Amino acid sequence: MLDYFFKPKSVAVIGASTDPDKLGYAVLENLVEGGYAQQGKVYPINPHAEKILGYEVFSSVTEVPGEIDLAVIVIPYTYVPDVLRECGEKGIPAVVVISAGFREAGMEGLERELELIDIAEEHGIRLVGPNCLGIIDTFTPLNASFSAGTPPKGPMAFMSQSGALGTAILDWAQAGRLGLSKFVSLGNKADVSEIDLMKAWVDDPDTNVILMYSEGLPNGQEFIEVAREITRKIPLVAVKSGVTESGSRAVSSHTGSLAGSEQAYQAAFQQAGVLRAEDMASLFDMALALGYQPLLKNNRIAIVTNAGGPGILATDALEHRGMSLSRLEVETIQDLEKYLPDAASAANPVDVLGDARANRYEFALKAVSEDPNVDGLLVVLTPQAMTEIGATAEAVGKISQEIDKPIMGCFMGEAKVESGIEVLRKYNVPNYSFPERAALAFRAMADYREIRLRPQPKFETFDVDQQTVRDLLERVKSEDRYSIGDLEAWDILEAYGIRIPKSKLAESQDQAVEYAAEIGYPVVLKITSPDILHKTDVGGVKVGLESPEEVRDAFELMLYRAERYLPEAEVWGCQVQEMAPPGGLEVLIGMNRDPQFGPLITFGLGGIYVEALKDVTFRVAPFSRKEAQAMLEEIRASSLLEGVRGEPPVDKDSIVEILMRIGQLVQQFPEIAELDINPLIVYPEGQGAIAIDMRLVLSSEKEGE
Amino acid sequence: MLDYFFKPKSVAVIGASTDPDKLGYAVLENLVEGGYAQQGKVYPINPHAEKILGYEVFSSVTEVPGEIDLAVIVIPYTYVPDVLRECGEKGIPAVVVISAGFREAGMEGLERELELIDIAEEHGIRLVGPNCLGIIDTFTPLNASFSAGTPPKGPMAFMSQSGALGTAILDWAQAGRLGLSKFVSLGNKADVSEIDLMKAWVDDPDTNVILMYSEGLPNGQEFIEVAREITRKIPLVAVKSGVTESGSRAVSSHTGSLAGSEQAYQAAFQQAGVLRAEDMASLFDMALALGYQPLLKNNRIAIVTNAGGPGILATDALEHRGMSLSRLEVETIQDLEKYLPDAASAANPVDVLGDARANRYEFALKAVSEDPNVDGLLVVLTPQAMTEIGATAEAVGKISQEIDKPIMGCFMGEAKVESGIEVLRKYNVPNYSFPERAALAFRAMADYREIRLRPQPKFETFDVDQQTVRDLLERVKSEDRYSIGDLEAWDILEAYGIRIPKSKLAESQDQAVEYAAEIGYPVVLKITSPDILHKTDVGGVKVGLESPEEVRDAFELMLYRAERYLPEAEVWGCQVQEMAPPGGLEVLIGMNRDPQFGPLITFGLGGIYVEALKDVTFRVAPFSRKEAQAMLEEIRASSLLEGVRGEPPVDKDSIVEILMRIGQLVQQFPEIAELDINPLIVYPEGQGAIAIDMRLVLSSEKEGE
Repeated sequence: MLDYFFKPKSVAVIGASTDPDKLGYAVLENLVEGGYAQQGKVYPINPHAEKILGYEVFSSVTEVPGEIDLAVIVIPYTYVPDVLRECGEKGIPAVVVISAGFREAGMEGLERELELIDIAEEHGIRLVGPNCLGIIDTFTPLNASFSAGTPPKGPMAFMSQSGALGTAILDWAQAGRLGLSKFVSLGNKADVSEIDLMKAWVDDPDTNVILMYSEGLPNGQEFIEVAREITRKIPLVAVKSGVTESGSRAVSSHTGSLAGSEQAYQAAFQQAGVLRAEDMASLFDMALALGYQPLLKNNRIAIVTNAGGPGILATDALEHRGMSLSRLEVETIQDLEKYLPDAASAANPVDVLGDARANRYEFALKAVSEDPNVDGLLVVLTPQAMTEIGATAEAVGKISQEIDKPIMGCFMGEAKVESGIEVLRKYNVPNYSFPERAALAFRAMADYREIRLRPQPKFETFDVDQQTVRDLLERVKSEDRYSIGDLEAWDILEAYGIRIPKSKLAESQDQAVEYAAEIGYPVVLKITSPDILHKTDVGGVKVGLESPEEVRDAFELMLYRAERYLPEAEVWGCQVQEMAPPGGLEVLIGMNRDPQFGPLITFGLGGIYVEALKDVTFRVAPFSRKEAQAMLEEIRASSLLEGVRGEPPVDKDSIVEILMRIGQLVQQFPEIAELDINPLIVYPEGQGAIAIDMRLVLSSEKEGE
Repeated sequence: MLDYFFKPKSVAVIGASTDPDKLGYAVLENLVEGGYAQQGKVYPINPHAEKILGYEVFSSVTEVPGEIDLAVIVIPYTYVPDVLRECGEKGIPAVVVISAGFREAGMEGLERELELIDIAEEHGIRLVGPNCLGIIDTFTPLNASFSAGTPPKGPMAFMSQSGALGTAILDWAQAGRLGLSKFVSLGNKADVSEIDLMKAWVDDPDTNVILMYSEGLPNGQEFIEVAREITRKIPLVAVKSGVTESGSRAVSSHTGSLAGSEQAYQAAFQQAGVLRAEDMASLFDMALALGYQPLLKNNRIAIVTNAGGPGILATDALEHRGMSLSRLEVETIQDLEKYLPDAASAANPVDVLGDARANRYEFALKAVSEDPNVDGLLVVLTPQAMTEIGATAEAVGKISQEIDKPIMGCFMGEAKVESGIEVLRKYNVPNYSFPERAALAFRAMADYREIRLRPQPKFETFDVDQQTVRDLLERVKSEDRYSIGDLEAWDILEAYGIRIPKSKLAESQDQAVEYAAEIGYPVVLKITSPDILHKTDVGGVKVGLESPEEVRDAFELMLYRAERYLPEAEVWGCQVQEMAPPGGLEVLIGMNRDPQFGPLITFGLGGIYVEALKDVTFRVAPFSRKEAQAMLEEIRASSLLEGVRGEPPVDKDSIVEILMRIGQLVQQFPEIAELDINPLIVYPEGQGAIAIDMRLVLSSEKEGE
C-alpha cells in the first residue's frame, strides 16, 4: 500500500526550477543528493527550462516517454488542478502536492482543495498534501521534499500534520538524535491521512516504531479501529496538540461539562493502544527506547551507577512511573560483593562508586544483566575524575548486543560525556541526560508490552426493545422537543433493560393505595399532569410515604393544590413510585458526542460529588466488557466500589452492563446528543442498580444512523 | 557570612600532591588555572615535597608565615582530625574537607566525623564537607575543588548534597548550558548546611537565583523559617530526591497513612516559598528564566511563531501550566496586520509564517512587546527554508535589552538552530528546545512573583486551657497508655476551644431524661463503665432517641445488659449525648509528625471519602490563618465547601480556626505523635463545626518541648 510513494521507480518534479532559491530546485536537489537519482529515474518538469542539475527537462508529464510512479507538485496553486489532471491522464498513481493556498487559505482555497480531491478520485490518484513539506524514505533512498538535507537512517517512521514541526524534527535527526525510516509531512490531508500511513507502515521491514504529530483526527472511529489492530504489531507514539472546538453546541448536561476533546483523545488513544506523549521531547525519548531496544518483558529494572545521588534520583523516577526495582538474587549480590570494593552497594541500585573504571562497570553490568529478576538495565554515569567514559560506553554497548533485555544509558552532563554518548549511539543504546527521561522511556516500553498482550476486544449486543425507543424518539421529535426527562426517560431505560423504580399512575385515592401496596412501602407520590412542569413548585411531590393513610392524605392534598393553584390544568392523577432502598452508592453514567470520535461514555461518582470532584473516566463506544470493567477501576474513588468500613462491594457487574447497554443505545440512536443518568444507585453485589434520574438531549440536526 | 570560603585572601591545600593523578594535585591546579593564584596567596601543604606547580610547599599550616583564610583538606581520613586541629591552632576560620571515610562509611566513620565537629567547634572553624568535591566562586575567582575545569560565570549559585551530581552539573555548565556564580558540594554536611548557604547567598550581588539538590533536611523547621525570609528576596529552586524512611514507627491513624515524607516536603517547600523542580532538567529550565530574565509582572504571555503547529503546542503548554495568552490591543493587531502578509495571524499566537525573515520577526516582536497586555514573550522558531536563524536571534536579543519583560526563545531543532541559540545566550535570553519547557519556566516565574508578593505570615496564639491537657496527658502517660479516644479526647478538644457534642453522665433514669431535655432531642445514650471497652459489643450504644420514654427504655435495657453480660463490671451510668444535627459536611483534620519538619497538619474530606479519595492537603505547623484558608481551597473537593445544589456554603472560618487550634495543640504538646478528628461535621456559615470523633496517639519516647 502506498508503495508508489515510498518505492517509486521514477519521480517527476513538476515545477523543478533552475533557481537555487526556489523550492522546486530544492526538491530536485534532494532527489539527487539524497541518492535516489542513482537508481531511479528523475524527470524535472518545467516548460521554460532545458536542463536542471544535468537532467533533461520536460514541459509536461505527458511529454515524458516512460512511466511515472510519483509526481511532486511545486507550482503556484492556481495551476495545480490542471497539472493534477495531466498526472491523471499520464496514469501517475501517487502525487505529493507541496504547493500551499488550499484549505488553510480560507473558503476559496477550500474549494480548490475539493477540486483536487475530485480530480484525484476520478483518476485513481493517491495524494499527499497539499500544503506540505514532502516525503522521505531513507532506505529507498528517496528524498522528495524541500527539507534541508536528508536525515540519517533509523527505525522510526514519522508523520507530521505540521510541516514546520517537520523541519525541526529533521534537524534533530540530522544532529544525530534520531534515525528515521520514513518521514511524511501530511499537510492538509486532502487524501492520504494518518490512517492510510498506519496501514502502509505496520508491516514495513525498515520501521520499528511509528511516530505521529496530529492536530485533529476527523475519522475518529476509523482511527481507533485501525490503530487497535496495528498497535498489536508495532508501537505507535503520538503527540496530539490543539483543542478542537466542539462548536457552539450548548453544553447542558454534567457529562457535557466534564467531557471535552481532551478526554475524548485520552479515551480513544487508550482504546486504540496509542502511546500518548505529552510533548515532543517525550515522543523522542519514548521512540528511542521502542525503536532501538528489545521488548521489556516485565517491569523490574536494575540500576548500575557510579554515584549515590543520581542513583536515588533514578530510583525515585522509576518508582514514580510505576516501574519496580529488581530484587537481585543472592548469588548475584554475592558475585558483586566479591569483586566490588567494600564501600560499594551490591544491592539494587548497584553503586560501583565514583572511582569505577570501565572494567568495574562491565563486571557489574554483566552480573546484573544475567540475573533472572532483571528485565531491564539503566546505566547511570557521572563524569568523575577516574571515570572512563568511552570505554564504559563500549562495555555497555557490547553487553546490549549479548542480552535480550533493554538497556539504556543515563550518562549525565554534556561536554565531557558526549564521547560516551556517541559510542552508545553506535550500539543503538539510547542515552538520556536525566534519569527521569529514562524512566519515562521504560514506562512506555511497559505500556507497550501491555498493549501488545491485551486481548482482542469483544463487543456485545444486548437483546433490547429498540422499537419502543424509536417510536418514543419519533414522537418527541415530531413535537419539536429536544430534551427528555422523567417518565419518558424511564421508558427508554426500561426498553434497554435497565432497572428503574417501579411506578404506576393512580387515578384515585383507592388506586394509589392499591399500587403502593403492590410496589411496597415507602413510596413516592407525584402529581401527573401535562400542564404542570415544575411539580415541586405546586407541592406536587411527596417522598417517604409509609402507610396507606399517608398515601391517601398526600393524594388528596396534591389534587386539592393542583386545582387551587392551576385550576385549568388537566390532572391525570398521581404517579406512585418505588423509593430506592437506602444503602446504595450514587454513581453517574453519561454520554456526549465528540465531534471526532463519536459517543463518549462517562462513568464516575454521582450525587453532589460529580461536580465537586470530577472523578470520572471515559470510553468511546463501542467498548468491550473488559474496557467497561477498567472504567470502574480508573476512577480515583474506585475503592468505594469495593465497599468501605466493612460494607460489602457494590454490584459492579450491573454497572458494567448498564455502561454497555447505554453504549448500545447511543450507537443505535445517533440522534441522542447527550445523556446523564444521575444518580444511578448501586446496591451490594447481586442486588443490582436502579437508575433514578435521567436527562437526555436530542440533536437538533438531522443525522443518519 | 562564610566570606572566608568564597573571598579568601589566602588558601592552603593540605595534601597538595606532585602526582597529577591525585586529587591533591587537581585542587591546587584548579586554584592556579581557575585564576585565584593571580590575586590570592596559595600555600601547598605536604611534608614530602618542595615545590608543586612552582609554589613553595610547607610541611604544615603552622609553618606558613602569613595568615590563612581557607584550608582545603585532601588527605587520607585517618590524618584529618590532627590536621584540622592544626588549622585551629593556626586560626584558620574556614576549612573544606574533601576527604571521604566519615559518616558515609559506617559507625567508625561517624565517630570520626563527630570528632571533626568537636574540633571545629572548639576552634571556631566553619567546615564544608567532609566527603565532598569542594567549592567554587567564579567571580572571586576561586576554584577550590577537584572538578575538571572551571564553569563559566553566571547568576546561579548551586549547592549539591551529591558530589557526583555536582560533576554532571559542572559539565553542563561548561558545555554552555548555564553560568554559575558559586558552587558548593555539601558532602556530609557536618557543619555548613543548606541553611548556612542560603543565609550567605541571599545578598550576594553576583547571584540571582539559588539552586539546591538535597537528599534530606534534618533541621526542617529552621529551614522553613530561613527560606521563608530569603525567598522574598531571591528565588530558590530545589530538587529533593529520595524518600526519607520515617523509621519503624507504626502508622495507626488515617493521617499517618496519608502523610509521608513526600507530603511534608511539598508542604514545607510551599510554606517556605521554595520552588520545587520535579527533576534536574526542570531545575535548569527554571533557573535560566529566573537567573537571566526580569520578573514576570503578570501571567499573560504572547507567542510569536513562524509555524502554526508549534504555535498550538506552545499555546497548549502555557495553558496547561495555568498561564494565559495575552489578548492583544486592537492597535497592536492593526499594526501587525499592516505589515504582516495576509495569511499571517495577527492575533496571539502571532504567526509570522514560514517564510518570515529576521526583519518580520523583529517588527512583530517589537509591536507585541509594547502591548500593555503582554507580560512576557515566547519566540518560537522552526528552521525553515527562508528562516534567518542568527539574525532573528540578534533581533530577539536586542529587544530583550530594551524591554523590562521576560522574553524566551523556543528555537526548535538542533544542528541548524545552534547558531541562533548561541546568539540568544550572548544576550542572556534562555532558549528551550520545546515549548513545554518554556511554559514550565514561565510558570516558575509566575510562582516566584506570587512568593515575593505574599504577606509575611502572622502566627496566632489562642487563649486555651493548656493545664487541663497537661494534667490529662500526664495521667494517661502515668497509666502507660499511648492511645486516647472518646471522652478524654473530647476533654482535650474542649480545652482548646473546639466544639464537641454536649454530653452528661446520668446515674439514673430520671437524670438521663433530665439531661436529655437539657441537651435537646434526639440524643445518644452510651453505657459508661471503666470495665467496658467495646460498648457496642454489649449493646451499650443507642442513637436517635427521640423521647423521654425512649431514653428511659434505653437506660434500663443497657443497665440490665451490662449486669447480665459483665456482672463484675463497675457501671457509672449512661452518657447522654447530643446527636450532631443533620445537614453538615464531614471533613477530617489530622496531624502526624514528620521526622524532619515536625507537626504536619492534614485537612480533607472526611467520612468514607478519606480513604477512597485521599483528597487531603498538608501544612507544617505553625502556619498563618491565610495558609490555613489556602488548605480549604487546595483539596479537589473544595467546591463542596462552597455549598452544592443551592445549599449555603459551610462555615469555613470555623474549620480554619480549628486547624490553627490543632496546630497550637500539637506544638505545645510534642508528645502527641498523631491525631485524627474524623469526622468534624461542619454546618452552614455561622453555625460552626462539631468534632465527633478524635483519636490521639502519644509518642512512646520521651521528647522535650
